[in-house]
Amino acid sequence: MVPHLVTALTGPINELEQRILESTPVIERWFRLEWMEHTPPFYCSVDLRNAGFKLAPVDTNLFPSGFNHLTPEMLPLAVQAAMAAIEKICPEAKNLLLIPENRTRNSFYLTHLATLVDICTQAGLNVRLGSPDAGETEPRVLPLPDGGQLTIEPLVRSKRRLGLKDFDPCTILLNNDLSQGAMPALLGLHEQYLLPPLHAGWTVRRKSRHFHSYEEVAKKFAKLLGMDPWLIHPMFGRCGQVDLATTAGLECVQTQVDALLTKVRRKYKEYGINERPFVVVKADDGSGCAGLLTVRDAREVQALAARVADRMADRRLGAGSPEDLAPEVIIQEGVATYERINDAVAEPVVCMIDRYVVGGYYRIHADRGEDENLNAPGAAYVPLAFAPQQQLPKRGSKPGASAPNRFYMYGVIGRLAMLAASYELEATDPEAESYD
Amino acid sequence: MVPHLVTALTGPINELEQRILESTPVIERWFRLEWMEHTPPFYCSVDLRNAGFKLAPVDTNLFPSGFNHLTPEMLPLAVQAAMAAIEKICPEAKNLLLIPENRTRNSFYLTHLATLVDICTQAGLNVRLGSPDAGETEPRVLPLPDGGQLTIEPLVRSKRRLGLKDFDPCTILLNNDLSQGAMPALLGLHEQYLLPPLHAGWTVRRKSRHFHSYEEVAKKFAKLLGMDPWLIHPMFGRCGQVDLATTAGLECVQTQVDALLTKVRRKYKEYGINERPFVVVKADDGSGCAGLLTVRDAREVQALAARVADRMADRRLGAGSPEDLAPEVIIQEGVATYERINDAVAEPVVCMIDRYVVGGYYRIHADRGEDENLNAPGAAYVPLAFAPQQQLPKRGSKPGASAPNRFYMYGVIGRLAMLAASYELEATDPEAESYD
Repeated sequence: MVPHLVTALTGPINELEQRILESTPVIERWFRLEWMEHTPPFYCSVDLRNAGFKLAPVDTNLFPSGFNHLTPEMLPLAVQAAMAAIEKICPEAKNLLLIPENRTRNSFYLTHLATLVDICTQAGLNVRLGSPDAGETEPRVLPLPDGGQLTIEPLVRSKRRLGLKDFDPCTILLNNDLSQGAMPALLGLHEQYLLPPLHAGWTVRRKSRHFHSYEEVAKKFAKLLGMDPWLIHPMFGRCGQVDLATTAGLECVQTQVDALLTKVRRKYKEYGINERPFVVVKADDGSGCAGLLTVRDAREVQALAARVADRMADRRLGAGSPEDLAPEVIIQEGVATYERINDAVAEPVVCMIDRYVVGGYYRIHADRGEDENLNAPGAAYVPLAFAPQQQLPKRGSKPGASAPNRFYMYGVIGRLAMLAASYELEATDPEAESYD
Repeated sequence: MVPHLVTALTGPINELEQRILESTPVIERWFRLEWMEHTPPFYCSVDLRNAGFKLAPVDTNLFPSGFNHLTPEMLPLAVQAAMAAIEKICPEAKNLLLIPENRTRNSFYLTHLATLVDICTQAGLNVRLGSPDAGETEPRVLPLPDGGQLTIEPLVRSKRRLGLKDFDPCTILLNNDLSQGAMPALLGLHEQYLLPPLHAGWTVRRKSRHFHSYEEVAKKFAKLLGMDPWLIHPMFGRCGQVDLATTAGLECVQTQVDALLTKVRRKYKEYGINERPFVVVKADDGSGCAGLLTVRDAREVQALAARVADRMADRRLGAGSPEDLAPEVIIQEGVATYERINDAVAEPVVCMIDRYVVGGYYRIHADRGEDENLNAPGAAYVPLAFAPQQQLPKRGSKPGASAPNRFYMYGVIGRLAMLAASYELEATDPEAESYD
């Protein structure tokens, strides 16, 4: 089952698909050369939006949590990619410690973890799970929906190393986005590989920094293919801290929203797109989705600010720092998703390990609009045979009509976002100076 | 459709399967460390024989020609593996010249070539075909059974480089086993990568040299798993040149056959196998299958020698050197194949690119016995979903009853043979001294 695109089959996106397919050897060689200079994150998932006239990443997750949606057919690809990653990072590795989120009551998340454990085991590692909760003192058995089980154990930290009881890993894989800050047990580890590094966590990451890197990547790629980078890049602005309690700083948001809407309108005109543009206002420093707002007019900002403040305060209840009501804000060009599965709005998610696309799935939401965030309660997931080169592109295929061709394009854009994450992590590496 | 094994489900092979599955992380790590020391061939296919009590490679092909039997689901694995290979060998590569066999009227072989072209194109290379026939002066269009086409062009050799008209490759991929000797155009190339190297061709290769390396690999692996290497290794002897015209040297063959049969009988007794052992006598220096003989008693040798001589003379008609009637001979323990598809004898073939298993297929032959060579006119091929980790091994599965578990085991043994080829190519590298 492949989602249909509600847009016509002759828009700029189909020219893009055509150009990407024709340029496969050039594109793959370009990636190859980029990966000689830049290190891909261990794993990554990228949410895409296909508006028919434009295809862009809207979120790049360095702690992916949807591997349960991959089909069994995709797992050999994931295993092979994990083998390639381990071979480069630490070929002698025997043991891998996986530190998950604290969501161990969510059976979908547990199935995701079980898949991750299987992938890494098949790739040649002994894998055990360590609890991110310092309060846990005993191993805990987590039953899986399929009848299997996982065991999560308390972390054991020595002066120089982190492990479990009778388990000394050479690599620690984080599947925890550190949005509550890095656990003390993770600090000051210099003998073990920590993947991804601490500064990939949301205490350090900023969406605006990522999209700044993505803009650079998109421009390079667009130059390679002789196309307008806007076709794959969502424009954005940022405001730094906005004190929502006092409405100071709101003027910046209004100005940015207005400026961005003007730029988008100009692009829509250039491409003859008869739609009303929108922008999205969201927190710059989090993977959370609360506080994400869709705005079609700068005048809406003030009215919405109060609601944002409320939502953000709810979301951060307990965190308690004064910055919580003065979040950093990013304003991003909205990209609608025009893919549908049984009339429900759908957005593709591309999963990657090392520099390889290992699969993907569609996130669908029956109750949300095409301009809304689908990563919300009520979302469903449709695993699709999303291996991009599963069937090789056929020259005769009508643009936009061939699923493998579309998936290949998604895999290319997903990898551009992953490359941007790699640029971003280099730029934000606190130890970067010591390598200079 | 998975072939059934006609043997019982409780033989040593099932203990082997069990042990291999339990040891996955240890095995994969062992391979990882081996590949740090040894370079895998670019690609490879290995014929296996599963006798129920024993599983062994019987032929390791460094110029595989069965990629047409891979299913579309396997192609992403092949593309990913080819990407990994190219990244290591020549990341800057733009162009790849593929030199095929001279069998361009065989539509199966053409489909294999088209698959190989697709895999390398998707991996990021411009691929063109060069003719191994120095007599060709014009490009020739080869129609494919699916309606597509390939073009094969005359080679253009300059003093230092080999290419095509307006096409300067940095890598030359041989899909030609050089059994007629290396084409002059391939000699003295030092600026371009030639994959596999010239000494992988049958003018240099010897089966006995390969199985000597395989024995070394099998012993290491058996030690790792604490098992008898014989369970995965076919014993062998060799005789150097045997002059079949004068029957001189035949005594050596008889002695070797006798000694080998005695050794095999001892092993059969040790494992309580109530079968009559057999050995296979074949030419040591060729991929060809003519001249392959099954012998159950040393006394049969003399009677068979005349037939061998006839067949070999036929086969080599035109080659004309005096060595043609005095071939080098290898005597190898016969391993019967006890897998059946619809009552036809079947043997698995494992396909690899770089150090990865990318798929496999079964070669079946309705008119051949379980102790005979199936690579003969009349053979049919069944592509199977043979990706070894496609479904992850399940602890609860009865040994020998789970297809993914069996395929994983086949992938491990296939990779052992590939590793042996890597040892072999290092040992026979004419330029090895200059690296010491």
